[in-house]
Amino acid sequence: MTSSITTAMLDIAVEQARIGRDEGGVPIGAALFGPDGAVLGRGRNRRVQHDDPSVHGETDAFRAAGRQRSYRDTTMVTTLSPCWYCSGLVRQFGIGTLIIGEARTFQGGHDWLIEHGVDVVILDDPRCIDLMTAFIAERPEVWNEDIGEE
Amino acid sequence: MTSSITTAMLDIAVEQARIGRDEGGVPIGAALFGPDGAVLGRGRNRRVQHDDPSVHGETDAFRAAGRQRSYRDTTMVTTLSPCWYCSGLVRQFGIGTLIIGEARTFQGGHDWLIEHGVDVVILDDPRCIDLMTAFIAERPEVWNEDIGEE
Repeated sequence: MTSSITTAMLDIAVEQARIGRDEGGVPIGAALFGPDGAVLGRGRNRRVQHDDPSVHGETDAFRAAGRQRSYRDTTMVTTLSPCWYCSGLVRQFGIGTLIIGEARTFQGGHDWLIEHGVDVVILDDPRCIDLMTAFIAERPEVWNEDIGEE
Repeated sequence: MTSSITTAMLDIAVEQARIGRDEGGVPIGAALFGPDGAVLGRGRNRRVQHDDPSVHGETDAFRAAGRQRSYRDTTMVTTLSPCWYCSGLVRQFGIGTLIIGEARTFQGGHDWLIEHGVDVVILDDPRCIDLMTAFIAERPEVWNEDIGEE
């Protein structure tokens, strides 16, 4: 994929993250794309908004995409390196490609996914870094809760 | 934990799995228990019932339990060895103990969880084996969809 395509895909996840931030939530967004580049589902972390710890950006996008027969040629785009829960989702369903906005403020399971054959692209996008850096500084207790840190 | 306690905990997950089977769904149930043994949340796979691929037994129980400050002293009980998605959930949130009804009809990430410090008990329960054996024989296409097999 060219960098203009990956950036356009990331833009959709960043938009979700910003909506989440504006709602007072954890600013992580994601989207699942089909083989033709069409958006199958968009999502964002809604721990705060729905009082629901199970809704991470990636799981929300996966849910929004509905039931799919195959994920091999789909691409998950997320603003932040996926935690183990979301990395497990990518591995179990065989999502072929993972595009990550940034992996500086948090490192999840992306190296593990590479080992297991997922095509991973890390963009180091300043918008994503800024969103998380600001959130972690402002709401460290919510962030720690979201990743299971005590 | 004594075997009578683990069996009583598993009974709750089996009840959920049977409800799921009777609804026409994938018969996997789970429950999350607090440090005192109280049920924090019950859940079951609802891929078919809700047309939602994100609702596995474990994620449904985790969701039903609501936001928790710590999972270290909680126990996840599931009728079937957790897939990578649900294993990732257990690892990310630091759920301390995992009780598995059976790991014959499907092997997920339980060995990986043991490596990462989770206390895992596998009960090899005939009720759980029978539920999955019957379902896999009757609805192989739904089962394969549920674990991302093409």
